[in-house]
Amino acid sequence: VPFWKMIPAIMCGNTCVWKSPQDAPLLSFALARIMHESGIPDGVINLVHGKGSGAGQHLVDAVDDGLVNKISFTGSTGVGKMIGEICGRNLVSCSLELGGKNPLVIMPSANLENAVTGAYWAGFGTAGQRCTSLGNLIVHESIYDKFLEMYMNKVRTTKIGDSMRHEDVLYGSMLSEKYAKDFLKGLDMCDASGAKRIHGEGRITEASAPENFLGSANEGVYMWPHVYVDVTEDMECFHEEIFGPVVTIVKAKDFDHALHLANASPYGLSSAIYTNDRLEAYRFKTGIKAGMTGINNSTTGAEAHLPFGGVKGSGNGTRESGIWVIEAYSYWHAVNDELSGKLQLAQMDVDEIEIEEAEADYGGLA
Amino acid sequence: VPFWKMIPAIMCGNTCVWKSPQDAPLLSFALARIMHESGIPDGVINLVHGKGSGAGQHLVDAVDDGLVNKISFTGSTGVGKMIGEICGRNLVSCSLELGGKNPLVIMPSANLENAVTGAYWAGFGTAGQRCTSLGNLIVHESIYDKFLEMYMNKVRTTKIGDSMRHEDVLYGSMLSEKYAKDFLKGLDMCDASGAKRIHGEGRITEASAPENFLGSANEGVYMWPHVYVDVTEDMECFHEEIFGPVVTIVKAKDFDHALHLANASPYGLSSAIYTNDRLEAYRFKTGIKAGMTGINNSTTGAEAHLPFGGVKGSGNGTRESGIWVIEAYSYWHAVNDELSGKLQLAQMDVDEIEIEEAEADYGGLA
Amino acid sequence: VPFWKMIPAIMCGNTCVWKSPQDAPLLSFALARIMHESGIPDGVINLVHGKGSGAGQHLVDAVDDGLVNKISFTGSTGVGKMIGEICGRNLVSCSLELGGKNPLVIMPSANLENAVTGAYWAGFGTAGQRCTSLGNLIVHESIYDKFLEMYMNKVRTTKIGDSMRHEDVLYGSMLSEKYAKDFLKGLDMCDASGAKRIHGEGRITEASAPENFLGSANEGVYMWPHVYVDVTEDMECFHEEIFGPVVTIVKAKDFDHALHLANASPYGLSSAIYTNDRLEAYRFKTGIKAGMTGINNSTTGAEAHLPFGGVKGSGNGTRESGIWVIEAYSYWHAVNDELSGKLQLAQMDVDEIEIEEAEADYGGLA
Amino acid sequence: VPFWKMIPAIMCGNTCVWKSPQDAPLLSFALARIMHESGIPDGVINLVHGKGSGAGQHLVDAVDDGLVNKISFTGSTGVGKMIGEICGRNLVSCSLELGGKNPLVIMPSANLENAVTGAYWAGFGTAGQRCTSLGNLIVHESIYDKFLEMYMNKVRTTKIGDSMRHEDVLYGSMLSEKYAKDFLKGLDMCDASGAKRIHGEGRITEASAPENFLGSANEGVYMWPHVYVDVTEDMECFHEEIFGPVVTIVKAKDFDHALHLANASPYGLSSAIYTNDRLEAYRFKTGIKAGMTGINNSTTGAEAHLPFGGVKGSGNGTRESGIWVIEAYSYWHAVNDELSGKLQLAQMDVDEIEIEEAEADYGGLA
Repeated sequence: VPFWKMIPAIMCGNTCVWKSPQDAPLLSFALARIMHESGIPDGVINLVHGKGSGAGQHLVDAVDDGLVNKISFTGSTGVGKMIGEICGRNLVSCSLELGGKNPLVIMPSANLENAVTGAYWAGFGTAGQRCTSLGNLIVHESIYDKFLEMYMNKVRTTKIGDSMRHEDVLYGSMLSEKYAKDFLKGLDMCDASGAKRIHGEGRITEASAPENFLGSANEGVYMWPHVYVDVTEDMECFHEEIFGPVVTIVKAKDFDHALHLANASPYGLSSAIYTNDRLEAYRFKTGIKAGMTGINNSTTGAEAHLPFGGVKGSGNGTRESGIWVIEAYSYWHAVNDELSGKLQLAQMDVDEIEIEEAEADYGGLA
Repeated sequence: VPFWKMIPAIMCGNTCVWKSPQDAPLLSFALARIMHESGIPDGVINLVHGKGSGAGQHLVDAVDDGLVNKISFTGSTGVGKMIGEICGRNLVSCSLELGGKNPLVIMPSANLENAVTGAYWAGFGTAGQRCTSLGNLIVHESIYDKFLEMYMNKVRTTKIGDSMRHEDVLYGSMLSEKYAKDFLKGLDMCDASGAKRIHGEGRITEASAPENFLGSANEGVYMWPHVYVDVTEDMECFHEEIFGPVVTIVKAKDFDHALHLANASPYGLSSAIYTNDRLEAYRFKTGIKAGMTGINNSTTGAEAHLPFGGVKGSGNGTRESGIWVIEAYSYWHAVNDELSGKLQLAQMDVDEIEIEEAEADYGGLA
Repeated sequence: VPFWKMIPAIMCGNTCVWKSPQDAPLLSFALARIMHESGIPDGVINLVHGKGSGAGQHLVDAVDDGLVNKISFTGSTGVGKMIGEICGRNLVSCSLELGGKNPLVIMPSANLENAVTGAYWAGFGTAGQRCTSLGNLIVHESIYDKFLEMYMNKVRTTKIGDSMRHEDVLYGSMLSEKYAKDFLKGLDMCDASGAKRIHGEGRITEASAPENFLGSANEGVYMWPHVYVDVTEDMECFHEEIFGPVVTIVKAKDFDHALHLANASPYGLSSAIYTNDRLEAYRFKTGIKAGMTGINNSTTGAEAHLPFGGVKGSGNGTRESGIWVIEAYSYWHAVNDELSGKLQLAQMDVDEIEIEEAEADYGGLA
Repeated sequence: VPFWKMIPAIMCGNTCVWKSPQDAPLLSFALARIMHESGIPDGVINLVHGKGSGAGQHLVDAVDDGLVNKISFTGSTGVGKMIGEICGRNLVSCSLELGGKNPLVIMPSANLENAVTGAYWAGFGTAGQRCTSLGNLIVHESIYDKFLEMYMNKVRTTKIGDSMRHEDVLYGSMLSEKYAKDFLKGLDMCDASGAKRIHGEGRITEASAPENFLGSANEGVYMWPHVYVDVTEDMECFHEEIFGPVVTIVKAKDFDHALHLANASPYGLSSAIYTNDRLEAYRFKTGIKAGMTGINNSTTGAEAHLPFGGVKGSGNGTRESGIWVIEAYSYWHAVNDELSGKLQLAQMDVDEIEIEEAEADYGGLA
């Protein structure tokens, strides 16, 4: 993510100040050192460490001082709105990639095995700690029972542990204690919403660990995979992003209901549908309000050549990746190079073509 | 201007609320009626009248209420910043086309007749009441005296009056008393800055009218054309936009100085250079910080197929006209339509091509 | 068709010699007169009449004399190959739009009503006298009987007559006696191939006319609609284009067989499939060798914004319509405008970036 | 050159037969082996050796047998025309990159030092053995004497020899005895044309070698650099390509004459002008009939991202390099994916929008 912002930024002639994430300063340092040693001159990439509320706030305040031409931020919607306000009043462009509550719809015509695989990977891959991870899993009622059974069979086999030591591990420890704490609050919110937890017991301990837990509960902050059912549109847990291994399942009456549910959260980052019906695929693609959509694929991931970004609460309309990112770090310049040797009056300088009756004798035709 | 916003907006499937300018409600009404009668359904184009501080403020407040997905505003930098702040904190995209202090540079290799024509049209056409009208006229010192003589000869011939009654009139009455009042304040600011007024006596009266004034001083708010010389970078009138028929002339020592002066104001909307030197044209094009540049053409006007908009204090990076305006009223949607029948893991799903030693006998070659 | 060639040709700065079709000189004359009166100068559009073997041959011979920079021809494959040879030896670009034996596949998942409508329109609209008209109708065996019944019910209702006098007429008289003669030879070839004729009695006479014939058999050259079944890949009528109201129906065992049949003729102009299976649509789109493909639409027609043209015996790879036609009448010109003030050596002029060890003390990190 | 054809060809899904040049079979073999070992499967790249009249002719004959879908040829105009004829009559696309007699114009406003450097490199770099090497050097009469003096000073310093042994060598031995023989015939033709040879004595021998010859006349086929002056449009040497180190200099009266001369040869591959006048640069760019043009740069070389190819006798309109080469090995396929559930009639299926008088009471306005 930092490279997909900084490399286009310096290609467009900018220098960058890069605030490392609070939980990964060393990795950022290593990347900065690689760039430095590859020949990028001093002062082009400038790494600062610190909390968002500390170093981050200083950077944003620098916009008010007129010192910064662009902010690119990936993080929470709340901070994104604050940055948007400060950039907005300074006419400074900002790229905001914020949260998501990404819906994935399963329709009866879907290949259910593929759908299970996609919904499982989207929900629990990298412990659900991606902005494109699955939020609400929306399942058509006619295949609900069958799908749920297949899905839970898969969830129960999940291998958790340190992927450096064990093969085929799906996910490992949470990024930090802070993320773990926030995630447990999210589970409380699901419980309080009235959703029914059918799998998962919070943090993995020596006393409470799933069958395929390969780690040591003391070395790292491991979480169970969690599944909630009976989730409805009026619950808080339907609307709020929870960063971690949890999926909230919603039952849909028909396609229209499923599409409605997919659009009902305040976010619009990623989305997906599993269907083999050409028309449903088309209607989902055109009806969903989201920046990214997978048809028979998971919500997770970014394609390097496609525009990445969200709508509604997930972003401010900017896009990264592909050629779109170039616009984020440059501006269009219209140049009118006049070679006629006279003044051109834009919008006012037109000649009229006179229509003449051709001097032809059409009479001979008959 | 309202059409170049609203037509792409409705093409992209939006409905619009259009606040007419305070001084031209009837013209807006006529345009809205034309659209209505051409078959646009009720509710698609919604015209409201009122002051910016009244009806305008209500529209902007509606962003905070989550009722509006897009604001497009053409007007002052001050109001633009306020709109930017409110839209920013709501993750709502806004297109801001704000003020300009557009520089026009004259270099010694220029065709001076063309340069005079362009600088005259840019400064006084439509009474200087365009956001792209000429602000600072930057003249190389080696041709300064000759250019100024030619320029003033042209300025003195200016025909002012009602273009409906007289031919070849360059400009007529100001848009309103409010604009006239603001313009006179701008002249006071020039005088107070220490710039030297060599032409123009403010508002045209029966007692004080230029030679080619064809109107009646009582019917309308007519202004003299004004020219200030000896303007320098430290003066307020070098930096502030003045909406009306006035040009501030600055002397440049060489090309680098001229480019520096052209970049020294807080705005970056339009810009122009007159030169026949290939390299100067190239260096101006790449060195100027502006959204639009004319080479051997005036600062004025918009090309329908090119991106229109400014940088620095002139806008927030959005562009109108051409294909760019489509992005202002729509969003990019990346759709990943999976036909392989298996899950694709973005960025992680690669196959390795095995390199095999070909089974060929190269020995026979020698 | 002449306009979609000539308008881009003159937009690119060419003048044109236009040979009218042998059977429609007056219509061509009217179009040329319209262009002339619209202000196109004398000599830009030059209309000649005559047979292909007369006036046409003279034009092609002019290529050998170096008088012509481009030939654009729509007609038979045989003539197209002769033109290709002459243009080829003169390094002159030619656009060739030749014949087609366009396949339309019906799969079991298709909406059969739509499929009948599409196959009917493609086969008999404008009496089958389009280069994109349906040739081989390829039907999956599992729905063959049902489809054929529905199709024949539709064919039997066909209204034939003069569309200026009667409403809802599907087609009228053949273009000329010559086309009629060629068409009847085509029917003889079908009979001789061993295909089974289940509808159609050749030319409509007073004695032999279909139920909904609204014309007068003596005023014009009207033809029955014809349907052949039991057509197989080894028959001549499977491979040869027949210009007129006839459809040859082939039974396919499965999707792969259907795709094979669709690719088995020597032509590759248009093609179509009716299916609601996402994967079959995709496999047909990528497997068919044709310049144009309709999914759940007929073979007939040209979309103005899409490239029009064929592969294999249907053309030489050139395309008309859309932006592609611009390339047919212009050429790419690579201009290298050097502003650095020194010689650039293409492919040899590279600087090496030296990699320096950064002077940083990483020791303090631990 | 083989890579810029074959790599896009296999990217587009083709397999290739590659005929190596008669004089460089081993280098071709090495490249083919590299491709083979990099994992390209057997049968994708197929190298054949032989003369053009042998192996080459067999490949071209295979087009008549319907075995080949594309020919890409770089070589002489004569062979190109033969290939064009055979491909043309088989509707097979061919990319032909043929000869050139590339003009380079020097105008009075040019930086003469740059112009000398460019014209010297274009004429004698790689011993003039490129299709883009300089043919006619067209010099404005007002700077003719001065330019010629500077140019000959440069030509006399030319270091010739084996670049593996000596530094700063401009060129080495001819590619083969065959090229040398053809080159000497070209010099005879220049002499016979009446052009005046002011430098160069044909093949370098021990008895006749230029001052900076660093090689051994017996090891290789080294040629003097040759310069002819007093060349005029009516001479054969003005029109014919000579592959080797020779420049023919033509005097021009003014810009129009220079442009005329630049267009007067039967070729149209590369071209160049040295000028600092904006308008001359523009007029040359738009007036020259050539596939490539350098402004203040030499005729030599290919930019990988720009279209490479010629007009007139230099090619048949096809282009290589950049995105253009993709079209050379693929074809456009227009797919119409219908999701409306009804038949679309191309060009005939339009709805009319009814215009209704809006039900509004405009009377209250006054």
